[in-house]
Amino acid sequence: MGGVVDGMPAGIWVDTVRVQEALDRRKPGQGALTTARKESDTVEFLSGFHPQADAQGRRQTLGTPIGFVIRNTDAHSKDYDALANTYRPSHADYTYEAKYGLRDHRGGGRSSARETVCRVVGGALAQALLPADLHIHAFVQRMAGVGIPEAAQFDVAKAFLHPTGCPHPETAEKMEAALLALKEAGDTAGGVIRCHVAGVPAGWGEPVFDKLHARLGYALLGINAAKGVEFGSGFAGSDSTGSQQNDAFTGVGQTSTNHSGGIQGGISNGMPLEFSVAFKPIASIRQAQQTVTRAGDSTTLEITGRHDPAVLPRALPIVEAMTALVLADFYLAQRHQLNA
Amino acid sequence: MGGVVDGMPAGIWVDTVRVQEALDRRKPGQGALTTARKESDTVEFLSGFHPQADAQGRRQTLGTPIGFVIRNTDAHSKDYDALANTYRPSHADYTYEAKYGLRDHRGGGRSSARETVCRVVGGALAQALLPADLHIHAFVQRMAGVGIPEAAQFDVAKAFLHPTGCPHPETAEKMEAALLALKEAGDTAGGVIRCHVAGVPAGWGEPVFDKLHARLGYALLGINAAKGVEFGSGFAGSDSTGSQQNDAFTGVGQTSTNHSGGIQGGISNGMPLEFSVAFKPIASIRQAQQTVTRAGDSTTLEITGRHDPAVLPRALPIVEAMTALVLADFYLAQRHQLNA
Amino acid sequence: MGGVVDGMPAGIWVDTVRVQEALDRRKPGQGALTTARKESDTVEFLSGFHPQADAQGRRQTLGTPIGFVIRNTDAHSKDYDALANTYRPSHADYTYEAKYGLRDHRGGGRSSARETVCRVVGGALAQALLPADLHIHAFVQRMAGVGIPEAAQFDVAKAFLHPTGCPHPETAEKMEAALLALKEAGDTAGGVIRCHVAGVPAGWGEPVFDKLHARLGYALLGINAAKGVEFGSGFAGSDSTGSQQNDAFTGVGQTSTNHSGGIQGGISNGMPLEFSVAFKPIASIRQAQQTVTRAGDSTTLEITGRHDPAVLPRALPIVEAMTALVLADFYLAQRHQLNA
Amino acid sequence: MGGVVDGMPAGIWVDTVRVQEALDRRKPGQGALTTARKESDTVEFLSGFHPQADAQGRRQTLGTPIGFVIRNTDAHSKDYDALANTYRPSHADYTYEAKYGLRDHRGGGRSSARETVCRVVGGALAQALLPADLHIHAFVQRMAGVGIPEAAQFDVAKAFLHPTGCPHPETAEKMEAALLALKEAGDTAGGVIRCHVAGVPAGWGEPVFDKLHARLGYALLGINAAKGVEFGSGFAGSDSTGSQQNDAFTGVGQTSTNHSGGIQGGISNGMPLEFSVAFKPIASIRQAQQTVTRAGDSTTLEITGRHDPAVLPRALPIVEAMTALVLADFYLAQRHQLNA
Repeated sequence: MGGVVDGMPAGIWVDTVRVQEALDRRKPGQGALTTARKESDTVEFLSGFHPQADAQGRRQTLGTPIGFVIRNTDAHSKDYDALANTYRPSHADYTYEAKYGLRDHRGGGRSSARETVCRVVGGALAQALLPADLHIHAFVQRMAGVGIPEAAQFDVAKAFLHPTGCPHPETAEKMEAALLALKEAGDTAGGVIRCHVAGVPAGWGEPVFDKLHARLGYALLGINAAKGVEFGSGFAGSDSTGSQQNDAFTGVGQTSTNHSGGIQGGISNGMPLEFSVAFKPIASIRQAQQTVTRAGDSTTLEITGRHDPAVLPRALPIVEAMTALVLADFYLAQRHQLNA
Repeated sequence: MGGVVDGMPAGIWVDTVRVQEALDRRKPGQGALTTARKESDTVEFLSGFHPQADAQGRRQTLGTPIGFVIRNTDAHSKDYDALANTYRPSHADYTYEAKYGLRDHRGGGRSSARETVCRVVGGALAQALLPADLHIHAFVQRMAGVGIPEAAQFDVAKAFLHPTGCPHPETAEKMEAALLALKEAGDTAGGVIRCHVAGVPAGWGEPVFDKLHARLGYALLGINAAKGVEFGSGFAGSDSTGSQQNDAFTGVGQTSTNHSGGIQGGISNGMPLEFSVAFKPIASIRQAQQTVTRAGDSTTLEITGRHDPAVLPRALPIVEAMTALVLADFYLAQRHQLNA
Repeated sequence: MGGVVDGMPAGIWVDTVRVQEALDRRKPGQGALTTARKESDTVEFLSGFHPQADAQGRRQTLGTPIGFVIRNTDAHSKDYDALANTYRPSHADYTYEAKYGLRDHRGGGRSSARETVCRVVGGALAQALLPADLHIHAFVQRMAGVGIPEAAQFDVAKAFLHPTGCPHPETAEKMEAALLALKEAGDTAGGVIRCHVAGVPAGWGEPVFDKLHARLGYALLGINAAKGVEFGSGFAGSDSTGSQQNDAFTGVGQTSTNHSGGIQGGISNGMPLEFSVAFKPIASIRQAQQTVTRAGDSTTLEITGRHDPAVLPRALPIVEAMTALVLADFYLAQRHQLNA
Repeated sequence: MGGVVDGMPAGIWVDTVRVQEALDRRKPGQGALTTARKESDTVEFLSGFHPQADAQGRRQTLGTPIGFVIRNTDAHSKDYDALANTYRPSHADYTYEAKYGLRDHRGGGRSSARETVCRVVGGALAQALLPADLHIHAFVQRMAGVGIPEAAQFDVAKAFLHPTGCPHPETAEKMEAALLALKEAGDTAGGVIRCHVAGVPAGWGEPVFDKLHARLGYALLGINAAKGVEFGSGFAGSDSTGSQQNDAFTGVGQTSTNHSGGIQGGISNGMPLEFSVAFKPIASIRQAQQTVTRAGDSTTLEITGRHDPAVLPRALPIVEAMTALVLADFYLAQRHQLNA
């Protein structure tokens, strides 16, 4: 896996240890809730940085494209041999083949969740560019049918302290139990990740097609297994009335409520960004499933590879990364306005 | 209002009467549920077509950019004079000013729903390019707190027969009553538009960032007042398990259920596309609201302009148009694969 | 004709009188060297400006796309009727038909030099954005086989004082005589436009694909009839040696010669930009020419429309406009670096 | 060095041996005319190909991005240490520093000619996509002041048989002698590469900004040391008249001359493409040069690294590669028209 990040200005100090930390939060092999694969997920930067590090080990961007690779150290391609001629239900096997006319069946390639390591590296670089007081916190709000109660108080920054990624301890324990029960049954769970962003100034986003939430939505829906996004009060808010939903101004750039989720007319309004991403259950279940072969013959499929019972805990750094990448673009774009 | 559609191949026959029909479905002045503005919304094409029409009045694209304008015949700029120094709650007034440093307060400019006429024209052109057996049907599934019951049977093609845009007659009547009550109270409603697309072959969409639903999500979230999108079983599906959610194959490109909403791994699988868009209630309510002036002084605002009680009925052709535009891009892109 | 300029920051004061002046320098009907068409070439802005003008009549950009149209007031479509089935030599008639399968034969459409009015409007807007001390001066260096002598002294700012566009009075007179002789003979001339740009700071341009001269070359070669570009000493310099060609540094950002034409490694070095554009003779000659019909039959063509004997005098504002557009992009892009 | 080629359709058979051959033609260490660096320039593909090769050792593209790296095996970073604080004349040292505020002085980074290995890999992939009967042949037409006589007959396909890259044996010998004399004197040469492309069908290119020659010019001017491009009769043709320059049609898509260089109105006309690229002499000369330090102090610079006396012989595969990349884009784009 690897990628190229282009458009990074020169002279940005990047703490590569932090980039690695972000990767480590995503990597498998961290507990009962994640697969047994042992991947070191070590990022190697090929270009883009000045060779000299400062006292804190940080290095400075050169303004050139930042190329990187993450070598796969624990691939078990033979796990996938049974899949050469059979379509896994709700996987990309069939659609890739319909699109390209051929596919490399080993390991899923770009349809594998492993692809997201590159997003995490990109996001960590974007974070280094963004203002220091801009904080992005994703957390698991709902998983395996268990959600944080509406009135519950919790600290969004503590999502990573629990293997579920849920920052509300009581809920986290219930989630874990539900998840382990599903795992035991050879089944998997979906859920909802919520994300809060503090420190976005008013003015980011474009008014027509490139609305801030349109670009965030695009980025978030590109994450594996994401099936929906909503901003502010989202779907629930569509049942309210204008007088309930409108955020009354209490000052310039200050509102009493935040049903808009920090975005009005496609542009940030200075309030915290708030949005959710719905993830479907992981399609790779151990239970036997009905499917067909490439020739169209009915068959039963039992998937034996290593898979998590839910994608959400490991998707948290990816949601944060995609958010950082979108925000970095708008941060740079808005400079044109501010300096005009 | 006007726009330019670039990238249209040459030799496509376009029935400009149909373009106008699509516009007419969006235009105001059509009943108690829409504003009293009388806008003709007549599209004038400035370029891109061969001058000679065929017997059915259709004209052929030249492969050149298609420029068009729609002149505003009923603008009441003075309606907006009171707004020069006051921010309407949950409008783009404040965010535009924060972004650009100045704004033209008359009529909302690009933040006005009127901007969407251009999208409708673009969508009608995209429809002319798409295969004839590809059908896009948007309908109002839920509005003013009233939704179509889950087991109800109805014909999605009949959405435009009722002023609410709801194709289930019983629900439509309840919606209308709820909406008129809100209008009476000087309030507004939100809701959910569902969209079905039949006839999309397997293979449209790109595997990583430009997933079919990511690009649809981007396009749909760019519509005024849209606050969420979901594909297939969406947010509700995130509470199910893998064994419930997976769509079992019954044949090559054929599944017994369609929880995926016709998209797997970001690529169409040949089943119908199904997705929803959540719209917040219109922010322009007649009821008095608390807000502030540009100087930061508290004030009370009463909006007197002409506004609909809900954006959804008129948003149907816009949802269809944005869908057509995205699909046309993927249709053209997939030709590279099919001919390789 | 019309266009849309996107990406213009908000708050830029634009003197629309100056935009019109730039157009007027390009318009036909100005003397014996240009066609008898009387086109007013009046630009009408449809969007993008605040309605209120300041004391000098300048208006401020809103940060929204700037749409404009220029209506064609003197089209003689019947002049072109003879061309429906015959290919004019060295015109785009055949290539358009090969590309699109059909064409609108009246007036050349996008292959007409008239298309360039839009470039001039865009360039004038770009000029309003660029630093006030950045000056772009194009002039006719060579035309109809007559060129400015190498040692000649002249003021590049005076190109527009003579109908040839040549700022060296003696050469200008010889050019005019040569051109009128060709016109008399029903023939046409080509030539070379040179362009000087003062006031470009060091640092504009990108190092690999988007080199400053690569992007300028792209923009300039897009002008009708342009067949070559060269930067600094260009083709002639390719015969020199490194020791002759290198520009010795006399200070930081200061060199004793400017053989590089102000660009090194694809990036401006603070010295004036200098480059040339070669234009072929206008293909529309009055002399009879051999050609074929669409059916492949040999025929003789006599073109009777209104055409200039050379494109160069009217191409000067277009060369300046394309230069301004490219520089405005790099000016905005470089802000990312400067503020990092 | 490395890169990513995106947009390659699936199912294209690529002979990776051919890719390596193209690289080998560019690599240093091949004779008296090129540097003594011994670089293996071996390309390693990281993604994009199906693992299974056919009998001829060819592999099939998957439709996924093709990532590759070429490891630098013979870098002498210490050769560059003297350059940390001194600007080499006519190099990118100063402009990079002005642009980015900092630079990595070792080896030139992206301003190094070594960067072009990536272009060669990309071009070889583009060649695999293009029709088999499309042939691109670049050759050295003029170098060190020695050019192929106008009436000379020669076979463009034989450029690679002589170390100068000149396919006319007599001229090649004179060029070599002139070049060796310059090398002896510690000096360098420039010259002109001409390129012929046979087999481009009529219809490639876009009519306004993306004219075929505008995009080719952009791509070619992005090559290190390129200072000019011209198409067909180019600068020389600008001295001719319309009656001399026009290419008379002798059939549909057939002209008696090819002064247009195969492009009319920005679109290919079915005749061979012909164009030239002017290269300045290499800036790295062994002779002592006047320059300044970063502090602005005058100093004398003697460059001791390994450098060629002329860039042209090794630039031939790069000119061919950039040509193939541009043509592949238009080949894919034109499918939209052909199938409409």
